[in-house]
Amino acid sequence: MRKMRAVQVGGPGGALEIVEREVPAPGPGHVLIKVQACGICHSDSMTKDGLWPGLQYPRVPGHEVAGVIDTLGAGVEGWKAGERVGVGWHGGHCGHCANCRRGHFVVCENAQVPGISYDGGYAEYLVAPVEALARMPSELDDVDAAPLLCAGITTFNALRNSGARAGDVVAILGIGGLGHLGVQFAQRMGFRTVAIARGEDKAPLAKQLGAHHYIDSRTQNVADALRALGGAKVVLATVTNGDAMTATLGGLALDGKLIIVGVAEKPIEVPSVQFIMGRNAVQGWPSGTSADSEDTLAFSALSGVKPMIETYPLERAAEAYDRMMSGAARFRVVLTMS
Amino acid sequence: MRKMRAVQVGGPGGALEIVEREVPAPGPGHVLIKVQACGICHSDSMTKDGLWPGLQYPRVPGHEVAGVIDTLGAGVEGWKAGERVGVGWHGGHCGHCANCRRGHFVVCENAQVPGISYDGGYAEYLVAPVEALARMPSELDDVDAAPLLCAGITTFNALRNSGARAGDVVAILGIGGLGHLGVQFAQRMGFRTVAIARGEDKAPLAKQLGAHHYIDSRTQNVADALRALGGAKVVLATVTNGDAMTATLGGLALDGKLIIVGVAEKPIEVPSVQFIMGRNAVQGWPSGTSADSEDTLAFSALSGVKPMIETYPLERAAEAYDRMMSGAARFRVVLTMS
Amino acid sequence: MRKMRAVQVGGPGGALEIVEREVPAPGPGHVLIKVQACGICHSDSMTKDGLWPGLQYPRVPGHEVAGVIDTLGAGVEGWKAGERVGVGWHGGHCGHCANCRRGHFVVCENAQVPGISYDGGYAEYLVAPVEALARMPSELDDVDAAPLLCAGITTFNALRNSGARAGDVVAILGIGGLGHLGVQFAQRMGFRTVAIARGEDKAPLAKQLGAHHYIDSRTQNVADALRALGGAKVVLATVTNGDAMTATLGGLALDGKLIIVGVAEKPIEVPSVQFIMGRNAVQGWPSGTSADSEDTLAFSALSGVKPMIETYPLERAAEAYDRMMSGAARFRVVLTMS
Amino acid sequence: MRKMRAVQVGGPGGALEIVEREVPAPGPGHVLIKVQACGICHSDSMTKDGLWPGLQYPRVPGHEVAGVIDTLGAGVEGWKAGERVGVGWHGGHCGHCANCRRGHFVVCENAQVPGISYDGGYAEYLVAPVEALARMPSELDDVDAAPLLCAGITTFNALRNSGARAGDVVAILGIGGLGHLGVQFAQRMGFRTVAIARGEDKAPLAKQLGAHHYIDSRTQNVADALRALGGAKVVLATVTNGDAMTATLGGLALDGKLIIVGVAEKPIEVPSVQFIMGRNAVQGWPSGTSADSEDTLAFSALSGVKPMIETYPLERAAEAYDRMMSGAARFRVVLTMS
Repeated sequence: MRKMRAVQVGGPGGALEIVEREVPAPGPGHVLIKVQACGICHSDSMTKDGLWPGLQYPRVPGHEVAGVIDTLGAGVEGWKAGERVGVGWHGGHCGHCANCRRGHFVVCENAQVPGISYDGGYAEYLVAPVEALARMPSELDDVDAAPLLCAGITTFNALRNSGARAGDVVAILGIGGLGHLGVQFAQRMGFRTVAIARGEDKAPLAKQLGAHHYIDSRTQNVADALRALGGAKVVLATVTNGDAMTATLGGLALDGKLIIVGVAEKPIEVPSVQFIMGRNAVQGWPSGTSADSEDTLAFSALSGVKPMIETYPLERAAEAYDRMMSGAARFRVVLTMS
Repeated sequence: MRKMRAVQVGGPGGALEIVEREVPAPGPGHVLIKVQACGICHSDSMTKDGLWPGLQYPRVPGHEVAGVIDTLGAGVEGWKAGERVGVGWHGGHCGHCANCRRGHFVVCENAQVPGISYDGGYAEYLVAPVEALARMPSELDDVDAAPLLCAGITTFNALRNSGARAGDVVAILGIGGLGHLGVQFAQRMGFRTVAIARGEDKAPLAKQLGAHHYIDSRTQNVADALRALGGAKVVLATVTNGDAMTATLGGLALDGKLIIVGVAEKPIEVPSVQFIMGRNAVQGWPSGTSADSEDTLAFSALSGVKPMIETYPLERAAEAYDRMMSGAARFRVVLTMS
Repeated sequence: MRKMRAVQVGGPGGALEIVEREVPAPGPGHVLIKVQACGICHSDSMTKDGLWPGLQYPRVPGHEVAGVIDTLGAGVEGWKAGERVGVGWHGGHCGHCANCRRGHFVVCENAQVPGISYDGGYAEYLVAPVEALARMPSELDDVDAAPLLCAGITTFNALRNSGARAGDVVAILGIGGLGHLGVQFAQRMGFRTVAIARGEDKAPLAKQLGAHHYIDSRTQNVADALRALGGAKVVLATVTNGDAMTATLGGLALDGKLIIVGVAEKPIEVPSVQFIMGRNAVQGWPSGTSADSEDTLAFSALSGVKPMIETYPLERAAEAYDRMMSGAARFRVVLTMS
Repeated sequence: MRKMRAVQVGGPGGALEIVEREVPAPGPGHVLIKVQACGICHSDSMTKDGLWPGLQYPRVPGHEVAGVIDTLGAGVEGWKAGERVGVGWHGGHCGHCANCRRGHFVVCENAQVPGISYDGGYAEYLVAPVEALARMPSELDDVDAAPLLCAGITTFNALRNSGARAGDVVAILGIGGLGHLGVQFAQRMGFRTVAIARGEDKAPLAKQLGAHHYIDSRTQNVADALRALGGAKVVLATVTNGDAMTATLGGLALDGKLIIVGVAEKPIEVPSVQFIMGRNAVQGWPSGTSADSEDTLAFSALSGVKPMIETYPLERAAEAYDRMMSGAARFRVVLTMS
């Protein structure tokens, strides 16, 4: 019986402790994956702090998993051992709820999330249902791929489905874990890319990531600055501040819309007259499926999108987690297994 | 020189007074229209009360005009005297602003509105630029056509561009001047039509207009009631109460959206988590052009949509206006000329 | 052990013979359905004449099944015995091919079809995988529902996804099993509905089904006649004659398209200049999934769409089949079980 | 009175002869443009060879004009002398036909084309209606801008409106005047870009322009090769050979479409079964308006798209024209004025 190292949480608010466990066996329709790298995401605090209703402990967090298929469970078709794969937030779906019946797996009413619904990627091995797998292009390193499976897909998928056309003004609100990828994606999709963040010091980085314009929300009126560029067809809000989102609305172009991917406590406040006259919209967007992850990885390899990361070995997971949560990381933290 | 009767406002807050005027002559690119009927719209208060910046007096209100072309000005092509036409809110556009250059005439930066930018339809004759004309089907009476040129086009055009497909749940929020037309349009477009209004007494009317379901917002939780129907793909908000709009958001289906055509002072409050998980949206919609009016009239003739109206002769315009503003009219008030 | 009557084909080109069989037991993920009615479709000849590669005999044809759930197999969730359901062409999908992974079940690379991949609805009982089930509204009779599950869904789903908006000119090419439903759907979706068929004798029927205009392709130039109506935004081709499809192309409006749901041997011939100047398109459409069937049934109940049918008891299946294939039926033939 | 050099055609099939003319004065709504460069397009043969019905002689060809506004006619708003502008195929529209009323200027029923409807850009000065003007970004040279105003806009506008999303496989059929720009645009829009042309020798150029894959249609089966890449979401056909277009259809992905911008004598032949099962489409696309040209120029400046050109002074126009028509130019020929 094979043993593996894993980092688990014993209960709500418990520490991230490294333990030895048996390598699990994949059931029917599942695969065993040898983890090579696993990103740390802010939403791992759902597991760490017990914020997800009904979560059971001990639980291994982690839903930004890059690895290799080790063993196939019964009835798995279309995959083979040795293939490199990724697993992201979309960790499985039921297939029979109203949304699944119409092919909307990402909003499955019984959706599974790795590291929440079952043990995730802070470990040397992981078992996941086959529908959670995304093929990994050979050009991508595991550590670079990991954050693409949550921070990456969320921004990539929101942008490619935004309706914006090449040449349109697209603004990314917030240059952090999601935003620094959003800027790269937007530029490589041919958008006139605007980065909006707080402080002039982020301007050089934004340009380096591909932004054509930078707006410092500390010193500039964001709506005015967007209008000076002709107005934004899309503002992709990666921040978690409702007021910051609302502050961009006046900068939307005709038919422009704000797309929300960051969760804010405070509602966005929609002014009816402006929205009517500008045919403006506010819309939410929920990441994507494993197939969308596959597209995200392929596009990143094709166009040279790369997350900025800090890596930590698995045994320093607690430290790595604190680093990520502190907001100091530039911009994602990734655990490595070997 | 021909004389005509007209109802004008002398200054902000002034009375609606009937006067005798000369019949105006159409300049180049304009036509003289013999008015047969003109609807009274709440936004006529813009003229009456001087709410439109820069409005000049005396001014004849009225932007729901049904009539007949009397005389063509120089250079007018494609129209002839004797044709029945309508003129609505879209009373002319400049052709050279950024929006016009891209064909978005309804949001022309120099848009003209009859009864505001120039003398409108509370009169026996009206001069309008040729781009403001909509062809009138022979099946429609003038008095029925008039309200379709503002209340009608607004709801028709919002609904046909909403992205909802036949069979989808579409809710009309508010059963008034706009809403009672919105319900008719929605049902005739094949939507599962829900009417939402205050009080159980409007239920029979809603059903008679074509609604399949009625929600009484006084006694029912609107969001719950919509969810019980499977959720709304579209809620068309014809009311002017921001809180009433916000109260519907929880009743949106996956990919459902709230479309705003009514102006509310209070912002609509968008909850980010629900919007993200439901791919929901809030969007504004600005009526339409004279070509859209033409489509509205044609569709109404085709499918038997008819406004509920009260008619008054032109000389009782002041009384008719008060009736409309009181909110007691069922549901639109139309002036007749003969 | 329960017995049932079924009508099977013994081999390619064999007769439709009524036999006694054991009622099958549903395996995991499957349900046993008591059939109430089953439509006969031209494509049943695939089974009868052995036109489907790899088809195994004996085989019971039938993919327009209306019935009641009798027994649930293991692991079936979301359904219960006694529920009325329909099963159409989409008789099951694999869930793991490239198309299924993206939710496009109707084009599953391993798609199952009732009556071809497994025994179909020419029988008192049928076993089908759970993903093939469509809920049946109480307002619909079984015999009326049956043809909606193939002829109905094909035209309904093509039309509601056509991009046509209410009031647009939509033409249905062919008034037969599919077309007579297409006309009804189009009218109830608010389209200006044109029926195109051969011979003046079909005009009264077309009008009665809801068509606003009728074009006799024997005596009229179809393209000219469509242009006289302003041009068609959509022509839905339900015929199997490539030349008849090509003949409509000149009647497309700006942005108009021909949607193909009928299989023709001869290619449609696309003229590049017209297509460029008119932004025209030719597009294929492949029926729909069980969820689309559910929507078709619900819409038909909502809006009063009803197939014109001839019914035969199961034991006269051979005669009924010949009647359908002869082209003389008006317009679909349905088998009843009791 | 100012004089200028111009190159005109005296009659159908006549020579391109250089003449001295008076610099024309712009009428109301028109501007006088000092031409800096003018591209030669294959469709200039319409003028040279009298292929356009009703064309009047003598006529100066040329609809790929880069220049500077010299003088404004009466009533021109929004432009000023000294501004750099471009004029392309969309040389003016009537504003009152059915298409113009709905904002579809590019398909105006009375569309004007420079060099056909009025004297074009093979001259030192040109008068054009104001609606034909496109603003020119300072980053673009005149000679590079010229071909973007016809070959560029056609491919750019077709691609950005194709519905393809970043990462999708997009193939450009033909590497010539249009295709070599299409490849650049496609790659900069984030598409997985495939170039299809005849002969292996074009492969290095295709890669250098940005293509990720190259298919040699002389030695490879194009449909098979596209399918090996996963199938094309879009094939943009810039060639003029109907059979070459038809040969790509089998390489379309699910929901993939062929977009035609090149005129072919032979129809494209659409196979119904494949199109139904693949939801495939064939669609035409007609270049774009002056506003679309403006977007084309801006995008080219933003993303570094540059035509490959050969330049000739105006007085060698006849030689330049022959060079372009011979098919030997790599890839566009541009006349310079100074």
